[in-house]
Amino acid sequence: MPVDSTPNANFGLIGLAVMGQNLVLNLIDHGARVAVYNRTGKVTDDFLAGTGAAAAARGDLVGAATLPELVAQLERPRRVMLMVQAGKAVDAVIESLVPLLEPGDVIIDGGNSHFDDTTRRGERVAEAGLRYIGTGVSGGEEGARFGPSIMPGGPRDAYELVRPLFESIAAQVDGEPCCAWMGEQGAGHFVKMVHNGIEYGDMQLIAEAYQLMRDALGMDAKAMHATFERWNRGVLDSYLIEITRDVLGTYDADGALVLDLILDRAGQKGTGRWTAVAALEQGQPLSLITEAVFARSLSSLKALRERASEVLPAGAEAVDVDREAFVADLEQALYAAKIVSYAQGYGLLRDAAKERGWSIDLAATARIWRGGCIIRSRFLNDITAAFEADPELEHLLLAPFFRDAIAAALPAWRRVIAAAARWGIAVPASSAGLAFYDGLRTARGPANLLQAQRDYFGAHTYERVDRPRGEFFHTDWIGSGAAVTSKGYEV
Amino acid sequence: MPVDSTPNANFGLIGLAVMGQNLVLNLIDHGARVAVYNRTGKVTDDFLAGTGAAAAARGDLVGAATLPELVAQLERPRRVMLMVQAGKAVDAVIESLVPLLEPGDVIIDGGNSHFDDTTRRGERVAEAGLRYIGTGVSGGEEGARFGPSIMPGGPRDAYELVRPLFESIAAQVDGEPCCAWMGEQGAGHFVKMVHNGIEYGDMQLIAEAYQLMRDALGMDAKAMHATFERWNRGVLDSYLIEITRDVLGTYDADGALVLDLILDRAGQKGTGRWTAVAALEQGQPLSLITEAVFARSLSSLKALRERASEVLPAGAEAVDVDREAFVADLEQALYAAKIVSYAQGYGLLRDAAKERGWSIDLAATARIWRGGCIIRSRFLNDITAAFEADPELEHLLLAPFFRDAIAAALPAWRRVIAAAARWGIAVPASSAGLAFYDGLRTARGPANLLQAQRDYFGAHTYERVDRPRGEFFHTDWIGSGAAVTSKGYEV
Repeated sequence: MPVDSTPNANFGLIGLAVMGQNLVLNLIDHGARVAVYNRTGKVTDDFLAGTGAAAAARGDLVGAATLPELVAQLERPRRVMLMVQAGKAVDAVIESLVPLLEPGDVIIDGGNSHFDDTTRRGERVAEAGLRYIGTGVSGGEEGARFGPSIMPGGPRDAYELVRPLFESIAAQVDGEPCCAWMGEQGAGHFVKMVHNGIEYGDMQLIAEAYQLMRDALGMDAKAMHATFERWNRGVLDSYLIEITRDVLGTYDADGALVLDLILDRAGQKGTGRWTAVAALEQGQPLSLITEAVFARSLSSLKALRERASEVLPAGAEAVDVDREAFVADLEQALYAAKIVSYAQGYGLLRDAAKERGWSIDLAATARIWRGGCIIRSRFLNDITAAFEADPELEHLLLAPFFRDAIAAALPAWRRVIAAAARWGIAVPASSAGLAFYDGLRTARGPANLLQAQRDYFGAHTYERVDRPRGEFFHTDWIGSGAAVTSKGYEV
Repeated sequence: MPVDSTPNANFGLIGLAVMGQNLVLNLIDHGARVAVYNRTGKVTDDFLAGTGAAAAARGDLVGAATLPELVAQLERPRRVMLMVQAGKAVDAVIESLVPLLEPGDVIIDGGNSHFDDTTRRGERVAEAGLRYIGTGVSGGEEGARFGPSIMPGGPRDAYELVRPLFESIAAQVDGEPCCAWMGEQGAGHFVKMVHNGIEYGDMQLIAEAYQLMRDALGMDAKAMHATFERWNRGVLDSYLIEITRDVLGTYDADGALVLDLILDRAGQKGTGRWTAVAALEQGQPLSLITEAVFARSLSSLKALRERASEVLPAGAEAVDVDREAFVADLEQALYAAKIVSYAQGYGLLRDAAKERGWSIDLAATARIWRGGCIIRSRFLNDITAAFEADPELEHLLLAPFFRDAIAAALPAWRRVIAAAARWGIAVPASSAGLAFYDGLRTARGPANLLQAQRDYFGAHTYERVDRPRGEFFHTDWIGSGAAVTSKGYEV
């Protein structure tokens, strides 16, 4: 096929699954002229004849049967975005694309890639004189079509080439686009990953509140619906609270609450797990989100839970509470736990930026999550404000606003965790949040004992409270007066 | 240097750091004739002239200046054990060694390697017609010298070649060696990793009990010492309880409790983290050990905790408890949480064996942990018995012994968790354990809500309680009566 040598498009997109198609339509709505390519040509043809027909007729959308044809249709510096399945497909397309491009051109990966892959690919593409952007695109199919939250990472100058277009297609909140440069290399995909982890946390916290209402307070769907309706007008105001309200108001044709018919076995696609793994590898405590990931794993062990429920005793107490007062406590507990979850997530982000030399603007991440994504909430305004007020803020919980918010919620939060423990209702994420909060505000924790044990059995040495850091001491524990022989300590 | 062509050793060992030297001396004590090699020759010379002098004089210990010389000194089939630093050094030695060996020879890695590396190396070595064993060796320097717990994995026939020697040098408990074949490929190193994870969990649970005694009950060292002394005669009887007792009885020359002088910032060497990552990747809830890993991370953020302690309110209550009764509760809580921790660890082991096709004998793992390692305890007899009684046991908590043990401890455990929440003392691992227990015994959890949310915002579909598994349903949530427009749901 002869390659058209007259560039007539200013953006290329590879991969026409639903996300890709919707992004193309969104781009065209905002003035882009887009050339598209899909491995299976029929998909391209169908798109051009279907939802893309009007744009194609206007000349704003052109199809390419091959990658060289796609590239030939693009104005320089070329911008080519991949919306293909994360993993090997991305590498394969990059390898095909690189020889076709010229120095200064930009390749953009808009899929759900792991940040380490993005960093690696960025280096590989840079070696060829090209520029690489890995970007999170949140909001699913509808977001892609009408306004996602966009989290791009890569060379700053490459970002400037896509910025106007990306800002135009992003969700807009208070006149600001939900798109901002997240930092170098894999920073964009890292931020997107943490966003997904936070989503896991938010969902699990809501699920725990729901279970307490359902199983401990014995509330019916109508009462729970009203509660979430009310919560959605307060500090918890957010998309996830809103849809939970709707779920609690959705009945099937027979009048049954749909929620009651749904199996309690939750799926996961892996980004929550990635977040937990990244936290473990960085040595950053991210306990709440990790508990949310484990809660999904436990939910999926449905058959085991059914058998366990028949043999394991509850050993629980009847706790007498005033329902209305307890629901008010629950709102505060959920709010406090959510603050801790975001604080942990931002701790991970901050540490990742420091460790990897990325320029992540924490205020910007909160700002662009306010629209176009599942964790959008009023609350994100407060996070934005906290980081704007103090860009060097060491930890979100140290911001006066959140410190005060937690202070107000703490007694209620403690009552909820204590009651759940006595009732026998599992609140793994909520209680992990409280344990983290209490651990964080404890200047003198119990880890001196861990260090003593490690020094005892492994001569790992320890630092002392009354000596400068970096000086290490060892105690001859066995010989120090304990009435034991050395025989007992061969470890 | 001419290579001696008369083999006069039946075991080779590479890497004469302290662990390696001690293993050699242990092997010789049990009848082996060992040839040794170290990259820096002076270390070999010093060893032969020092602690190895007597054995060298008898001809039971010979040094080799090069790897070919080492190999030439070994009877066939050769057995060569690596005690070098985990990581690239292991690969480098293997690459040097493989061309020198002959089909049927066995290479053994006794370092703290990651199980995936061991599986990979086993395949690489097998391609060369050789056999590879990756083995956990627990118990530190003293264990290596006088009786470690040994966890070998690899081809069964290769294990048979080292079995008599390994069983002889292992710790012995009730006449049984703390050594058994753990399964194929990386199974030995996987078991060792989980062992280390369990160690993290045990230590953290003890640290939480210690903090409750110290900060909530206001007990002094003497009272805590007496408590651990008593606990060590009951269900908690174990090495770690024993050394905690000793730590609480160790004073310096000025009469100060050494423990009080130790900085509360705990180190970690990575195997706890590996265990948590493996659990996340397998989708197995291992919340308690993971919380223990995160607790160490939080402990290491000492400066942040000090600042946080100045600004974050406690919002705690004075909880009035009877000290003696509460300490009795604590013992039960620690016991119950420990049971859950091991049950989670065994869940991970069981799942890893199933997923990777390994023949891990769960009873055997518990049996060989009863001596020569840090988690040794009376309790491991009960785990051994549970898996011996039912090798197909799906979950440790379903074993009658542990079900009954938890049943007896539950009310106390719930009181402790509830009190800690109200006091403001962080008990992340203990409360993760309780949340897991309650989640496990809940046939109908709250994950139906997660599935509803996922179907709402992402059309992920769900299964129904009244339909067979594998049938997936989707609800048009927006159109189902909730008074909202589609505009609000672009996600």
